[in-house]
Amino acid sequence: MISDTIVEPRHLDIERASIAAAAETMRQQIDHALSASVPKAPSSLYDPVRYILAAGGKRVRPVLTGLAAKAAGAGPNTSWISAAVAVELLHTFTLIHDDIMDKAESRRGKPTVHIAFGNDAAILSGDVMIALALESLSRHSEQSHELLEEFSLGFKRVCEGQAFDKEFETRHDISMDDYHQMILLKTSSIFELAATLGAYAAGGRIVEPLRQFARHTGLAFQMLDDLLDLTADLAAFGKTIGGDILEGKRTFLYVEAMGQYSKMTSGNRTLMDRIAAHEATLADVPLARDLFDNLGVLQTTRVMIQKETELAQSALQKVPNPRDRAALVAFSEYLLGRNI
Amino acid sequence: MISDTIVEPRHLDIERASIAAAAETMRQQIDHALSASVPKAPSSLYDPVRYILAAGGKRVRPVLTGLAAKAAGAGPNTSWISAAVAVELLHTFTLIHDDIMDKAESRRGKPTVHIAFGNDAAILSGDVMIALALESLSRHSEQSHELLEEFSLGFKRVCEGQAFDKEFETRHDISMDDYHQMILLKTSSIFELAATLGAYAAGGRIVEPLRQFARHTGLAFQMLDDLLDLTADLAAFGKTIGGDILEGKRTFLYVEAMGQYSKMTSGNRTLMDRIAAHEATLADVPLARDLFDNLGVLQTTRVMIQKETELAQSALQKVPNPRDRAALVAFSEYLLGRNI
Repeated sequence: MISDTIVEPRHLDIERASIAAAAETMRQQIDHALSASVPKAPSSLYDPVRYILAAGGKRVRPVLTGLAAKAAGAGPNTSWISAAVAVELLHTFTLIHDDIMDKAESRRGKPTVHIAFGNDAAILSGDVMIALALESLSRHSEQSHELLEEFSLGFKRVCEGQAFDKEFETRHDISMDDYHQMILLKTSSIFELAATLGAYAAGGRIVEPLRQFARHTGLAFQMLDDLLDLTADLAAFGKTIGGDILEGKRTFLYVEAMGQYSKMTSGNRTLMDRIAAHEATLADVPLARDLFDNLGVLQTTRVMIQKETELAQSALQKVPNPRDRAALVAFSEYLLGRNI
Repeated sequence: MISDTIVEPRHLDIERASIAAAAETMRQQIDHALSASVPKAPSSLYDPVRYILAAGGKRVRPVLTGLAAKAAGAGPNTSWISAAVAVELLHTFTLIHDDIMDKAESRRGKPTVHIAFGNDAAILSGDVMIALALESLSRHSEQSHELLEEFSLGFKRVCEGQAFDKEFETRHDISMDDYHQMILLKTSSIFELAATLGAYAAGGRIVEPLRQFARHTGLAFQMLDDLLDLTADLAAFGKTIGGDILEGKRTFLYVEAMGQYSKMTSGNRTLMDRIAAHEATLADVPLARDLFDNLGVLQTTRVMIQKETELAQSALQKVPNPRDRAALVAFSEYLLGRNI
């Protein structure tokens, strides 16, 4: 009926706006709790922590903790906040230490912690963020055993993913299975941690469906990040375009293109060899983009992102409340709908 | 009676030997469980962990966990082992990261981890040891909340102590209160963690007396370490004699001597100024030792170590079983009886 077709989109728009407003409220609650979680002294230890937390960030993972907690039945209070803070502190710790290893000089438009405060402070301040994460986690008096198990597993897997990523950079035999395994560890783990801690903070219902949602969302998120490295608008992306090419990163695009090495022209093989050997220059970036486009790699990446997004959303069937389910779908659309 | 005076020492010797044998059994159980706690792959991540664990170490802190667990009523099984492993992994992580910050080149007679494997591997392998510690801790299914609270507190305090220690190195106004606060954080925290995790692993009895024992033992241990830096026999100490003098460390001896600065000769003031400014050379080490001896600082340090040892032992009155109490006294004597 005409009235329905007019009313429904308007109703959806209102629901969408209300979901977005709820997520924004969560983000503000998280920011407030994050600030409150950092002690004053010693300032040499905690100033770098305040510095990186103040640099912003979309708080994607702790918002997922909040949404997962609501989906698992958390009441209107903020019982999930301490778990969400633990997740963001752990994630931010990995940024500080990864930036040292990657010799990255800026993040979120500001000098990285080790550039601003020195390597020693960056190491120790990163370390203490794990302790602050655990302190925040220990504010939950229920389900402590499960929270600790999930945290230790997620943390271990993130470290393993980072180690594999570094190992892969000097290897020439990375298969799609290797890549998949690596990003499950490096990227999906912390999404899974965010979702499962939220579920346990709310009492421990529907942990596995939420873990599946987070896992596939994480996989899609990483592949989108790989894609945007070559296709994004510089201002919107906030990183150097082609950075992965210059660093010889074994991304989804690289591994997929390497699978077609045997049918490439000798010029394109030389280009791939330069990337593999970390010898690519800025002039190679548009060449790589054109090659990947011509090989169908960019399109394959888009299809895979779409596939993982659908797998993520289909894991949400076990979420009892349709509004909670809609909020998680909106979260994945927000995260994965960026310019693909 | 004659028969008693003959029998009693023999009885004590037998008990002492039996206590030492039990501690040695614990140490072997800990070593075995430590090895089993480290995964195989990725090898770039876990080889450095295996390397530092294989370099030895007296396992002082995890043995304390075992002794505390027994004192708190643990049965003859090894229910405390996972907590003990968590403590040793956390302690060893601090060694790896501290060695990077201190630019230390050798430890336990082998190249430090960052020298052997590079800074990046040392950072990441240190990080994952915390995750392995948490994984080990999560093997306890009871008292998880208390175990997590103690672990996060101890870990945070160790980081804060390290930060204060580094801050103090460039400050000239360190009081004895500052020093005391710093070593409570830097050294006692992990002894306290060792004891309280043991107590909670055994069900949570006599946590506070064991914490007090550990705190004072840790304070005495750090002051003894400060003293041995100047007075130890090189071979027995295993570190450079006078290293603290060369690095301008604000040790107990330094702070105590600085308290008598106004009554020093101008030559001795210049010596203290050189130490404070990190400008002392090897030739200054015997001068500093003689000065500290003449000022009575060495003797004051010995008295303070003795005092903290007595405070530690007097905290053991609440330990119900005399044999468990004797084992903890033997532990502190083993630890603190070194050549003072």
